[in-house]
Amino acid sequence: MILEIINKKRIGKELSYKEIDYFFNGYLNGVITDYQMSSLLMAICINGMTDEEIFALTKVFIDSGDVLDFSDIPGIKVDKHSTGGIGDKTTLVIAPIVASLGVPVIKMSGRGLGYTGGTIDKLESIKGFKVDLSDEEILDQVRKINLVVTGQTADLVPLDKVIYALRDVTGTVSSIPLIASSVMSKKIASGADKILIDIKVGNGALLQKREEAKKLSEIMIKIGEVYHKEVRTIISDMNAPLGRCIGNSLEVLEAIDVLKGREKDNNFVDLCYKLATEMVSMGKEITKKEAYYLVLESINSGEAYKKFLEMVGMQGGDIAKIKVSEKTYKIKSSSNGIITKINALEMGKISLALGAGKLNKDDKLDYSVGIVLNKLIGDTVKKGEVLATFYTNKKIPEIKIENIYKIN
Amino acid sequence: MILEIINKKRIGKELSYKEIDYFFNGYLNGVITDYQMSSLLMAICINGMTDEEIFALTKVFIDSGDVLDFSDIPGIKVDKHSTGGIGDKTTLVIAPIVASLGVPVIKMSGRGLGYTGGTIDKLESIKGFKVDLSDEEILDQVRKINLVVTGQTADLVPLDKVIYALRDVTGTVSSIPLIASSVMSKKIASGADKILIDIKVGNGALLQKREEAKKLSEIMIKIGEVYHKEVRTIISDMNAPLGRCIGNSLEVLEAIDVLKGREKDNNFVDLCYKLATEMVSMGKEITKKEAYYLVLESINSGEAYKKFLEMVGMQGGDIAKIKVSEKTYKIKSSSNGIITKINALEMGKISLALGAGKLNKDDKLDYSVGIVLNKLIGDTVKKGEVLATFYTNKKIPEIKIENIYKIN
Repeated sequence: MILEIINKKRIGKELSYKEIDYFFNGYLNGVITDYQMSSLLMAICINGMTDEEIFALTKVFIDSGDVLDFSDIPGIKVDKHSTGGIGDKTTLVIAPIVASLGVPVIKMSGRGLGYTGGTIDKLESIKGFKVDLSDEEILDQVRKINLVVTGQTADLVPLDKVIYALRDVTGTVSSIPLIASSVMSKKIASGADKILIDIKVGNGALLQKREEAKKLSEIMIKIGEVYHKEVRTIISDMNAPLGRCIGNSLEVLEAIDVLKGREKDNNFVDLCYKLATEMVSMGKEITKKEAYYLVLESINSGEAYKKFLEMVGMQGGDIAKIKVSEKTYKIKSSSNGIITKINALEMGKISLALGAGKLNKDDKLDYSVGIVLNKLIGDTVKKGEVLATFYTNKKIPEIKIENIYKIN
Repeated sequence: MILEIINKKRIGKELSYKEIDYFFNGYLNGVITDYQMSSLLMAICINGMTDEEIFALTKVFIDSGDVLDFSDIPGIKVDKHSTGGIGDKTTLVIAPIVASLGVPVIKMSGRGLGYTGGTIDKLESIKGFKVDLSDEEILDQVRKINLVVTGQTADLVPLDKVIYALRDVTGTVSSIPLIASSVMSKKIASGADKILIDIKVGNGALLQKREEAKKLSEIMIKIGEVYHKEVRTIISDMNAPLGRCIGNSLEVLEAIDVLKGREKDNNFVDLCYKLATEMVSMGKEITKKEAYYLVLESINSGEAYKKFLEMVGMQGGDIAKIKVSEKTYKIKSSSNGIITKINALEMGKISLALGAGKLNKDDKLDYSVGIVLNKLIGDTVKKGEVLATFYTNKKIPEIKIENIYKIN
């Protein structure tokens, strides 16, 4: 049975619900080994899955654990997920915006791995901030302030946890069926009424091609239909880092700047407004235009930032105690011109080398390190001007400016 | 590095010699895990390998162990390999024929697994027959009688042993690059001057399609060119079992019948003559026509059978003591007609269920059980006549005649 299923997928045939259920739950129960699962995962990566197979896998994922129910909380609960990128701190900005406008936000976030950061790591760079709230604490906080951002509870899609860990070490991460079922199962099990997905495309993202992102978008919307949940998607660029900062503490400080309305015009601010607008439109069932004005208002009035401070306070954090490394290193432009490119992947690699990310799960994070982009795409730069500042407690890794910046 | 190599093959790019060497030797040394190797193997199964990659993998395989040198033995040493089938006892017939004609035969054979039998298991059904000869015993015996059939020595391509064991449990057996490098590395390391490969195609074989067999043939010949060794291939049918008998003792008895010239006209006898003719033509550097007459002569004169008895004697066996189970079960035809099909795979499954093969490496073989086909393809049959006899020490498995025979 085990080999028959692997061989079927190897030659590109469709697996039944029963076969998918047997194999994946067999893995969770220890009947199927790591090496058999990785063999099937690679066959899925290369040969793909039909819609029916993806629905089956999503169901098997969801059924492996608890499904949360927030129907007691009044209002439409809208959840948001990003497929991950370099400098992506959008949750820190949009969750307070949306919550401040009366839409309840219960956001369960993950940790970073490799080049891409995780919201939970970023929040932990705020001294004292609790990210492992109990179900009761979550409900209590949402009732009080309409907003909670916490880590995933242990019993949510346990199958995804073991499969994701295996994919991570077997070169089977980049697969539309596996990404779709992993993300959607978690979002559905988290009890959201509506779901917004931010699909990143570019050299700093899981997906490199726009067509792949479109395919992922289509299947995610279809999975939503199966569970009678509205799903909207946004495809956003991940060839350049998002905003000015990469690294945990630095990104929290940047998010605060955006919430305070101090940053108005860059790719990160644009994306925050876009995503917040979609969430407000979904949660309040209003047009995007109406939602957009509400979003602007929540920033301008200071309500969004107030909501952020409420959340930090209730979860035990103290924003006066965000630490940034004192050791810095600056790189300067060797020519005059306009910046036309900043390579997200290269910046991600450097940030990882500085200690802002983990290569292995057991690595230690240094919250205080990272990168600030003094110049962004479109900025003019003169010879000798600072392009970027690296905050570090280690030896600076070798940096080749020409691999990161294109100046024309 | 590990994930980069897997990802490269996942998207169908060519791996360098350095990458293949790093990954496969890393597996042998424990740096790379089972689940990473099976992930790469599946990617190879689906995306294939270029000729250069296959040459690299073959070299890595060969270099992982000893390479035997039989240059002291005069004459051209011709080795033969079959990709495996149901009822395939050709080695037992052709090795004595070829040796009796003055071509030295040093044949290292394997054990069976799954539906397909192994020459070494068949020889062990002859009581006392030694299959684990030392290098010295091999050389001594070849010098004396020109013929030895023994198990593979431990230090021959150790990498292939671990990779094959993993492929067997991860659904990654059926891959032309992996089959080609596995077979050819063993044959080249075994020290043969020339190599004949019998590639089976059909439902009882690893390969189901003739085009796949042709591809395998082409790459095996090319690998031979790299090592300056003549390689010839024969593509033979494995939709029907070979000859009359399936099962270890029964197959030895059938081989003896053919060596004695008692069986003259069936698919097994034809294949033996064809393979022996190729080997003699290669070993004596004569035309196939010349070789064919020599082969016929060696059977008719009794020299081939004499050579077989010499080998059995020198390796400690006693053909008077070949045991066949006394419990039999016969299946009879329910109609009149001509047999147009006998399903090799179904017969293989039954033979396995009777105990003639092993499903797992730790299973015990019963040498005395198996199947005799009383009627072969092309035979006319009357209602009530016996089609096949099952020799067993167990409960007879359920047999559906219509799945095995087609009678028109």
